[in-house]
Amino acid sequence: MYSVTVRDHIMVAHSFRGAVFGPAQQLHGATFVVDVEFRSPELDENGIVIDIGRATETLRKILADLNYRNLDEVPSFKGRNTTTEVLAKTVFDRMAEARQAGELGAGASSVESIRVTLHESHVASASFEGRL
Amino acid sequence: MYSVTVRDHIMVAHSFRGAVFGPAQQLHGATFVVDVEFRSPELDENGIVIDIGRATETLRKILADLNYRNLDEVPSFKGRNTTTEVLAKTVFDRMAEARQAGELGAGASSVESIRVTLHESHVASASFEGRL
Amino acid sequence: MYSVTVRDHIMVAHSFRGAVFGPAQQLHGATFVVDVEFRSPELDENGIVIDIGRATETLRKILADLNYRNLDEVPSFKGRNTTTEVLAKTVFDRMAEARQAGELGAGASSVESIRVTLHESHVASASFEGRL
Amino acid sequence: MYSVTVRDHIMVAHSFRGAVFGPAQQLHGATFVVDVEFRSPELDENGIVIDIGRATETLRKILADLNYRNLDEVPSFKGRNTTTEVLAKTVFDRMAEARQAGELGAGASSVESIRVTLHESHVASASFEGRL
Amino acid sequence: MYSVTVRDHIMVAHSFRGAVFGPAQQLHGATFVVDVEFRSPELDENGIVIDIGRATETLRKILADLNYRNLDEVPSFKGRNTTTEVLAKTVFDRMAEARQAGELGAGASSVESIRVTLHESHVASASFEGRL
Amino acid sequence: MYSVTVRDHIMVAHSFRGAVFGPAQQLHGATFVVDVEFRSPELDENGIVIDIGRATETLRKILADLNYRNLDEVPSFKGRNTTTEVLAKTVFDRMAEARQAGELGAGASSVESIRVTLHESHVASASFEGRL
Repeated sequence: MYSVTVRDHIMVAHSFRGAVFGPAQQLHGATFVVDVEFRSPELDENGIVIDIGRATETLRKILADLNYRNLDEVPSFKGRNTTTEVLAKTVFDRMAEARQAGELGAGASSVESIRVTLHESHVASASFEGRL
Repeated sequence: MYSVTVRDHIMVAHSFRGAVFGPAQQLHGATFVVDVEFRSPELDENGIVIDIGRATETLRKILADLNYRNLDEVPSFKGRNTTTEVLAKTVFDRMAEARQAGELGAGASSVESIRVTLHESHVASASFEGRL
Repeated sequence: MYSVTVRDHIMVAHSFRGAVFGPAQQLHGATFVVDVEFRSPELDENGIVIDIGRATETLRKILADLNYRNLDEVPSFKGRNTTTEVLAKTVFDRMAEARQAGELGAGASSVESIRVTLHESHVASASFEGRL
Repeated sequence: MYSVTVRDHIMVAHSFRGAVFGPAQQLHGATFVVDVEFRSPELDENGIVIDIGRATETLRKILADLNYRNLDEVPSFKGRNTTTEVLAKTVFDRMAEARQAGELGAGASSVESIRVTLHESHVASASFEGRL
Repeated sequence: MYSVTVRDHIMVAHSFRGAVFGPAQQLHGATFVVDVEFRSPELDENGIVIDIGRATETLRKILADLNYRNLDEVPSFKGRNTTTEVLAKTVFDRMAEARQAGELGAGASSVESIRVTLHESHVASASFEGRL
Repeated sequence: MYSVTVRDHIMVAHSFRGAVFGPAQQLHGATFVVDVEFRSPELDENGIVIDIGRATETLRKILADLNYRNLDEVPSFKGRNTTTEVLAKTVFDRMAEARQAGELGAGASSVESIRVTLHESHVASASFEGRL
């Protein structure tokens, strides 16, 4: 299995509901350094898993929709905690849609699974990995 | 599959038996930066894999039992080499026990597997990954 | 010149005033990984620049006052942008006060300068360095 | 499953053929920081997955064959793009051969799979993972 | 003293002349992860050392001139080794010129010195630091 | 001012004397990732601060004398705590001697100062910097 990983980041505000979150129930924020790994059993005729330029550009677009925002006010997250896990799944879903829509190029058709990891500090991260 | 990873570290002394270890047969030491990844197919009602506060606290307790010690004198390791691999398995086993004992909270019941990675330097690491 | 550096982090929300900030004028957030370096021309009788346990504990206390908060609502920052630079200076000032108050221990009396660095992502950081 | 990972690096020149590569069609270069992870379901009598000294030495030899070269002029790559993905597979193949030839020692016989990751910058990497 | 640091990277080919370089006399290449630190004794009215957006954009432009090239064929380097040290100085000079030309904005007028660091691998880097 | 930095590491055991060290008074250990930065106001005719091959080799030799040992039993440290600060100074002194003895090559004659940093974990480091 081959894979290619690209990285970008977002800086967001949010708060959580639930006693388990302790002080993180207050409005606070985070930098999420986002890694997206594309996995494929084979390479295309160019010798690549995916057009890394398109992958990077698509990730930038997906993140631009979240970047520099208070996620508590983003309608699509209404009623849900925007935990690192939930955000990893969100980036995964949007990347899967982008591939379906052809935004990642023809080469991406052999990509079987994607893993999205969000690093929230030097000591914690979360990820979502799924098949396409 | 979702996952959450937390990080802590220990500083220990030990020596190895076996010609394969070369100069590491002498009493020496290591800082192990320890990553524990918890994997679950679903999130709980709070939108998390596990209470990250509890996970961090439990890891701290498990490591406190090893930290600042000469592992050659720890009874539970008697007759065994405390290689990075063995220590990764040790942290895994104790974390699995902690979960079984409910120390990681109710949410941890959906955690299916754990991966423990010990970074021993900027150029080497070892891990153990297993199902619960 | 000797130095010792310790690390911790905070997760905060804030917004900036000023066209130069572009989209960062909106309420957003950041994880700041904070490094504090203590510099001294000599070591004490124990062979250290500073009691690293006390330094770590003091940093934790200083950061606890900022952690998991919306800095726009913190009175001491009223009317000022809480840029990474300003926060680095804030941590510096509070650490200098803690040393003056003896919280860093007797050994810290030879510390001549402190450098505080806040990493806001994998591609940007800011710092303040000053003499005591 | 246990694993051990070792790291080394190479500095090479190359160019790519294919419009998808944009400016990377020109002769340019890269530092590849190479991680090789060896996975085994069990430890040998010494408590290790593999002799880390032999693994490191074997990786060094494999990389020495590529290091400080213009890959466009290496016969074994003739007619192929030496993308990060292709190079990851190349290192994998040569490591698999080395194990087959006994260069990794007797203990390596239980190694079931290898994952090779090449980091090409702070924002991109590629890997190949396969069974032996 | 305040400072702000931004990061980007380039991927180049080159060769060196001089026996001291050993195998690096052959055409090879490198990824250089480039950090530029801007130092100022004071903050502007916005609370910043420099407009980080402009600094990042200016660094991108400076590096674009070198990126994906064989530096042996760049006229401005004719007759010189493009060592990591020389490249650090090159980026410094161009950044100093950009500031002089007003490309970094009015706020950059208080920047007293700049430090440029090029990381060529996980084990080596070089830098140039100078006053403006 | 130019600089070049090289990296290597050691794995040692030791214990400390003094109540300030708490549990670190017990025999324990550490991995020290060692960075040595050589600073020079000018480059030699090859365009370098120092022969990076010789610098790396000299660092390896200096560290080999400490690596895989119990520092409590090393005669030259008798009666002293081998704190991270003390070890940074030790590496500095030996590197300064090596330069004086010509082991770093003729080019090293313009090196004015050296900074040695020992990273003992992902959250702590110490350094010594001095003129030659």
